[in-house]
Amino acid sequence: MAELSEKARSKLHSLNEALESGAMTRVRRIINSGLAPVDVAHLIESSPPKARKIIWELVDKEIEGEVLQYLAIDIQSQFLSDMSAEEVVDATADLDSDDIADMLQQLPEQVTQEILSSMDHQDRARVEAILGYPEDSAGGLMNTDTITIRPDITLDVVLRYLRRHQSLPDMTDNLLVVNRQNEFIGALPIRKLLVSDPLQTVREVMSTGSTVIQATQHETEVAKLFERHDLVSAPVVDANGMLLGRITIDDVVDVIRETADHSLMSMAGLDEDEDTFAPALKTARRRAVWLGINLITAFIASAVIGLFDKTIEAVVALAVLMPIVASMGGIAGSQVLTLVIRGQALGHLSGANFRWLFNRELLVAALNGVLWAIVIAILAWVWFGDPRLSLIMAAAIMINLMAAAVAGASLPQILKARGIDPALAGGVILTTVTDVVGFMSFLGLATLIYI
Amino acid sequence: MAELSEKARSKLHSLNEALESGAMTRVRRIINSGLAPVDVAHLIESSPPKARKIIWELVDKEIEGEVLQYLAIDIQSQFLSDMSAEEVVDATADLDSDDIADMLQQLPEQVTQEILSSMDHQDRARVEAILGYPEDSAGGLMNTDTITIRPDITLDVVLRYLRRHQSLPDMTDNLLVVNRQNEFIGALPIRKLLVSDPLQTVREVMSTGSTVIQATQHETEVAKLFERHDLVSAPVVDANGMLLGRITIDDVVDVIRETADHSLMSMAGLDEDEDTFAPALKTARRRAVWLGINLITAFIASAVIGLFDKTIEAVVALAVLMPIVASMGGIAGSQVLTLVIRGQALGHLSGANFRWLFNRELLVAALNGVLWAIVIAILAWVWFGDPRLSLIMAAAIMINLMAAAVAGASLPQILKARGIDPALAGGVILTTVTDVVGFMSFLGLATLIYI
Repeated sequence: MAELSEKARSKLHSLNEALESGAMTRVRRIINSGLAPVDVAHLIESSPPKARKIIWELVDKEIEGEVLQYLAIDIQSQFLSDMSAEEVVDATADLDSDDIADMLQQLPEQVTQEILSSMDHQDRARVEAILGYPEDSAGGLMNTDTITIRPDITLDVVLRYLRRHQSLPDMTDNLLVVNRQNEFIGALPIRKLLVSDPLQTVREVMSTGSTVIQATQHETEVAKLFERHDLVSAPVVDANGMLLGRITIDDVVDVIRETADHSLMSMAGLDEDEDTFAPALKTARRRAVWLGINLITAFIASAVIGLFDKTIEAVVALAVLMPIVASMGGIAGSQVLTLVIRGQALGHLSGANFRWLFNRELLVAALNGVLWAIVIAILAWVWFGDPRLSLIMAAAIMINLMAAAVAGASLPQILKARGIDPALAGGVILTTVTDVVGFMSFLGLATLIYI
Repeated sequence: MAELSEKARSKLHSLNEALESGAMTRVRRIINSGLAPVDVAHLIESSPPKARKIIWELVDKEIEGEVLQYLAIDIQSQFLSDMSAEEVVDATADLDSDDIADMLQQLPEQVTQEILSSMDHQDRARVEAILGYPEDSAGGLMNTDTITIRPDITLDVVLRYLRRHQSLPDMTDNLLVVNRQNEFIGALPIRKLLVSDPLQTVREVMSTGSTVIQATQHETEVAKLFERHDLVSAPVVDANGMLLGRITIDDVVDVIRETADHSLMSMAGLDEDEDTFAPALKTARRRAVWLGINLITAFIASAVIGLFDKTIEAVVALAVLMPIVASMGGIAGSQVLTLVIRGQALGHLSGANFRWLFNRELLVAALNGVLWAIVIAILAWVWFGDPRLSLIMAAAIMINLMAAAVAGASLPQILKARGIDPALAGGVILTTVTDVVGFMSFLGLATLIYI
């Protein structure tokens, strides 16, 4: 309940305190006082490395598997690597086949085999079916335990058949109809089953137009389908239309969340799986790479400035004002870049409308260019009282905003076409462009006029 | 079907071409050849303003409402404002009460009243119930048409009762159990209904521990609950526990998508509802504000440089190298900033663990500071052959990376505590800090050593 989640949150807080003060008995009591697995997982994710190990040790064996399933990849694989094959099998016994597969994908091949071989035949078959597909494909996302029925039986028979189950799989909104060859031929919505005449046959009631997902489709493609058609679950078939399993919305929601996080994190050179509480050394190593790449950008910009050292020596005010030109270009460019990257993610951009967008951005840059060129020229004049300086500033701002628009709008499309992630590489390249153009135009013009 | 979505996409493409070439008859044919409303909406979103109007004119009256419902807020309200009250009522007749409420919330109060008054009594009551709550609350998100049952009847009666419906509402995974006062007392999962003995009563089978949402809860809070408990739908109650309606996962997915987009767009000073194909003038106006704010930052940085113009005059190499110090700080800082903002969104940060994170970031900054200080010192030495310059660079980089860590880690928490959006304000303030500290430390140290 909402209340419960409140309760859980307060528990997390007191647990944090207990950990801080090292009151282990209290920690144990809190964890094993019916804190939901998802909350335990969230608590582990919210804890520094040391505390994580402690909490994990104290987690009740029964819920270990569920807790693992809710943990972020980084932490999950770390814990898994400390467990023996038997322990993993025991912990994951009650999990869905797709969640087990996700975990195995993070273990070394040989360990995975060990675990698979110690599973019972049916479970192994299910998990192996999923492991046969890439992690980021529909096949890797699907769950293999589905309820299938034949088209020629009556709804009444279906109802009696269902009653023989202890319970139905989570998120069962459709019963999947297959023929003798296990080929998917339609879906019987539970909603229809309940309101239809029991004497009708499945074939008469089933819907054949429902969304079918190919096992090889990419997970982001799957997410789009779920969003566009408001699905709760959808059947997954192989190239021959044979039913392999189904994908449920809860797994799709994770995909949506990760894809959305990806752009945000990539633009800062971070990974969307980035563990907020990763140890310092690991973090430093990852960050160093990004800083190194950006250092190259910075040195390129400096090299441009270096070309005009004589001019700067003559008119030192140039050194004072030049960062303004560069930074305004960077800001304007990153707005265009972000908009286009978001547009790509939403699938808004096609060849036809991109030309319009590109021209729109040029126009926007021109409008803001004029506005801010005037403002900056006036401010510069008030500051240094040199009309030539104001003129140079205005021209440089104008040039750089236009360059920023061109780069910001075209970079994502160019990079994407070359299979490079625009969110990751776009910002760095853009800054290089706006810095170089900014310093070049400003100091170049100054050289023409002053020297 | 997946195939269909393929077909739709190719249709969108040929439609774009038809629009480009102005072949109106072809456009009309394509749109009215069974393109799903969601695809029409997507096409409109993907079109420049002019094309939008054309397509909208051609849309079949029957699907107008559904198309509207799938459109981005910006475009939706634009089209709505061109429609008469009667037209809106006709178009939205078949929509869910929550979707109608969403649309009305974008119209002027007086128009909304006009529309409400021309609805039939029951529909008006439903919509008004939703309009009573803020748009971003559970109440604003909920749908009021739910199937409720009493606890004391048998499942057999329930099944017969359901059969009297033409169909059940979308995403009905639970029947909501209420007492005579319409107080919510439990949920009967369809999955249980189907496998249980028909002679049992609802009270015996219903689950009472299910998640209940308060109408006043914020939508992001609702999304967290849906994600944590893998919900398809959840009942919404008022302060007295009276059942008001229910929220379904399809609406929650939109909330998740928007919240995730928010950080990305805000960091570039954009709104998550930003229309990719908004007209140039509107776009320019919105962007101008952001550029203005950042101009202030830039001038502050320039003012700092201005303090040291004598030093730069003496050693022009300083002007060449100073952007490196500032930009390295900016990059390092934005990495920390982004990580913390994401951590806040995931609810990972509490008082206890934040102290650890803060210290971790200081340590990371120190490690990368040492590494890059050495690299940059060497590069600067190779370039200018002045050991003093290298020394100053190294020290300034070290100082600025530490400052960046402090600002990047603490800004989001400080801003959030003051109710300011960290994603929007964080970047600007951070850049100001890293620019000022960067130029100040670099040029300041230079002044001490050279002058």
